[in-house]
Amino acid sequence: MKEITSTQNAFIKQLTLLKDKSRERKKTGLFLIEGVREISLALKGDYALDTILFYPELFSEERLNDFTNQQITSIEISKDVYQKLAYRETTEGVLAVARSKRNHLSDLKLDKENPLILVAEAPEKPGNIGAILRTADAAKVDAVIIANPKTDLYNPNIIRSSVGCVFTNQIATANTSEIIVFLKTQNISVFCAALQASVAYHTQDYTSATAIVVGTEATGLSNEWLENSNQNIIIPMQGEIDSMNVSVAAGILIFEAKRQRDFK
Amino acid sequence: MKEITSTQNAFIKQLTLLKDKSRERKKTGLFLIEGVREISLALKGDYALDTILFYPELFSEERLNDFTNQQITSIEISKDVYQKLAYRETTEGVLAVARSKRNHLSDLKLDKENPLILVAEAPEKPGNIGAILRTADAAKVDAVIIANPKTDLYNPNIIRSSVGCVFTNQIATANTSEIIVFLKTQNISVFCAALQASVAYHTQDYTSATAIVVGTEATGLSNEWLENSNQNIIIPMQGEIDSMNVSVAAGILIFEAKRQRDFK
Repeated sequence: MKEITSTQNAFIKQLTLLKDKSRERKKTGLFLIEGVREISLALKGDYALDTILFYPELFSEERLNDFTNQQITSIEISKDVYQKLAYRETTEGVLAVARSKRNHLSDLKLDKENPLILVAEAPEKPGNIGAILRTADAAKVDAVIIANPKTDLYNPNIIRSSVGCVFTNQIATANTSEIIVFLKTQNISVFCAALQASVAYHTQDYTSATAIVVGTEATGLSNEWLENSNQNIIIPMQGEIDSMNVSVAAGILIFEAKRQRDFK
Repeated sequence: MKEITSTQNAFIKQLTLLKDKSRERKKTGLFLIEGVREISLALKGDYALDTILFYPELFSEERLNDFTNQQITSIEISKDVYQKLAYRETTEGVLAVARSKRNHLSDLKLDKENPLILVAEAPEKPGNIGAILRTADAAKVDAVIIANPKTDLYNPNIIRSSVGCVFTNQIATANTSEIIVFLKTQNISVFCAALQASVAYHTQDYTSATAIVVGTEATGLSNEWLENSNQNIIIPMQGEIDSMNVSVAAGILIFEAKRQRDFK
């Protein structure tokens, strides 16, 4: 078993960059995963792991067997090294170096006749992206598509706030134009959530192939989406404020579609 | 016009405590509000303001007139003082000292025949509480009740993440037993969201007097709620993970009730 005890080790320094820098993750195609559940979900989601690092006081060597359905290098690390790499307050003592997926539109497998897809344009806050991915997992949507992403998916804040649902969903990222062409080609009806829309969301039928598209809280969806949708829809709001949390709005719309589909 | 330029001023020191310490807010019955929209919503929600503090480079004296439907003391403050008190990154140059409400159950006005009430037990994260209050505002529920609160409502993080919806909702806080007695006395049906429930939420009728109750993500609702509900309900989840963000779950349930009521 290889051991690393120095925070000045070159490999550890590279992992620190992977944790902190989106650019480094993009350049190398690698990212860090922390925590037992997250690593397990990544394996289940067919992510390739290169290396597992564990701090034996918190995570015993025998437990590595849970993760050995692949050829993975294991490295024992010291407390100092673990604390340098760990992100969360509640620590489990285990980290993995994983290979990112391409997340291309063309990789999406949409086998069903009437897929349900959630599209989010330019979401910014990792907490909101995490909540959206959790909702998408719970609803078992067929795919999540991020339009014009502002951050890479393997940002540690997104992995954490999605409690690993970044690995359980089929996800693609692309620019808005590409996604519109993709959806039209596949004959998927596009419903855009818009504060200016006059049609209430619950009056529409989402039982055939459907994409529900949500924008940012600050600026909503771009005109390109609004002009290319089959129907713009609104969640009627009757209070003092005209904005809802974007992940809550996505949840309301997706679960209305699920209800209409009788959760099948 | 009174002016304060020193961060060592005794009044400013007290305001810093109001910003940072829940205990100080409880002791004095006062709290700080930051931002034009938030202060306007507090006035609209019948909160009494004692003092307005403004930094003239960002907020001109004339604009104080927007807030003068009450007898409010205005104080001009220096940049140093403003930066000491301000909480947000996007600054508008204006703060108010407001008096808290009691938020007693007995203060709730439930005039309608079939009120819709959202109850959250022991919510912890200010971001989730804020999102729940935004949803409650959008749905114009008749009241929000926080059971066994873990934090005071006038925590600056809650005011901020609710974008002022802490002022637009009728809110009460109480312990779980008191709330159950209150709801039963008022003949309000209690629907508790529970991962162990066997009845799917969308099969129930929420058109008569209804309270929807959600618990924490970590531990769910206490047994006291589950044993005293008219019906425990579940949002069917079909993914890898058995937990949804609590504010998303609350949004799905409340808007199913709104849909059944045809948004009236």
